[in-house]
Amino acid sequence: MMNNIPIYSIVAFSGTGKTTLLEKLVTELKSRGLRLAVIKHDAHEFDIDHKGKDSWRFTQAGADVTVVASATKAAIMENRPVSIECIINKITDVDIIITEGYKHEGWPKIAVKREATGESFPIPLEECVAIVTDVPEETNIPCFGLEDICGLADFMLG
Amino acid sequence: MMNNIPIYSIVAFSGTGKTTLLEKLVTELKSRGLRLAVIKHDAHEFDIDHKGKDSWRFTQAGADVTVVASATKAAIMENRPVSIECIINKITDVDIIITEGYKHEGWPKIAVKREATGESFPIPLEECVAIVTDVPEETNIPCFGLEDICGLADFMLG
Repeated sequence: MMNNIPIYSIVAFSGTGKTTLLEKLVTELKSRGLRLAVIKHDAHEFDIDHKGKDSWRFTQAGADVTVVASATKAAIMENRPVSIECIINKITDVDIIITEGYKHEGWPKIAVKREATGESFPIPLEECVAIVTDVPEETNIPCFGLEDICGLADFMLG
Repeated sequence: MMNNIPIYSIVAFSGTGKTTLLEKLVTELKSRGLRLAVIKHDAHEFDIDHKGKDSWRFTQAGADVTVVASATKAAIMENRPVSIECIINKITDVDIIITEGYKHEGWPKIAVKREATGESFPIPLEECVAIVTDVPEETNIPCFGLEDICGLADFMLG
């Protein structure tokens, strides 16, 4: 079971400018006073901690979870496989969650396409609640231009 | 309200070898098949994310929570003040939580002293459930040598 925070996934083939779009969307939603979480799916192995730091040493020693917390922020590192549902349930006190790169999960998906890449949308249009593209599409699905961050935000907050 | 996972705080003045002790303790507890979380209190401002990475860009854009997740691990970054109780409630599926540097919280504390530092225990002995030191103490509180990781682990798993 997942918490009740509205959640959207932004999906696109790499090179489409998904990260830049998301960055602008975060800025737009923040300017509207919303609290938000962004979840990035990393297909590769990322290394977020820094070699030699105390937290890194605890992780190396075998800690399943390593946390670093200060007065102003915190990082909770799960050093083991965790389901996306489990991660989402750890997110509290935000008004909206946006995920990047989760194409096959059950929540609403917004697909992005840019003509210059020569790629299409990464999932069938009927699986999307909206699309973002610089090429007009023949579809009944809400469609936003790549620069129409404001329209996209309006739609998401609908 | 906090979750029901047993929790201990290891407290000591800096230079006592608290991190090394904790590192050995993690190794010992893992060898016994336990799943564990370590929470390090950082008095300074730490930077766990890497400048220029997508996750870093989302945080810069204003995301309150930034998550990076792969098939094998995940990092949940709270880019705002979060209480230690809130952090503890986000920790699931571990058998024990060990915190480093939380001297004044309500859970059991184990104080560490090393003669060479010239420092005493960082909190009064009556606030400790156990002590770890290389100098025998006149006390009824359970006392372990700095190298007696096994004894300390036995005590914690009581």
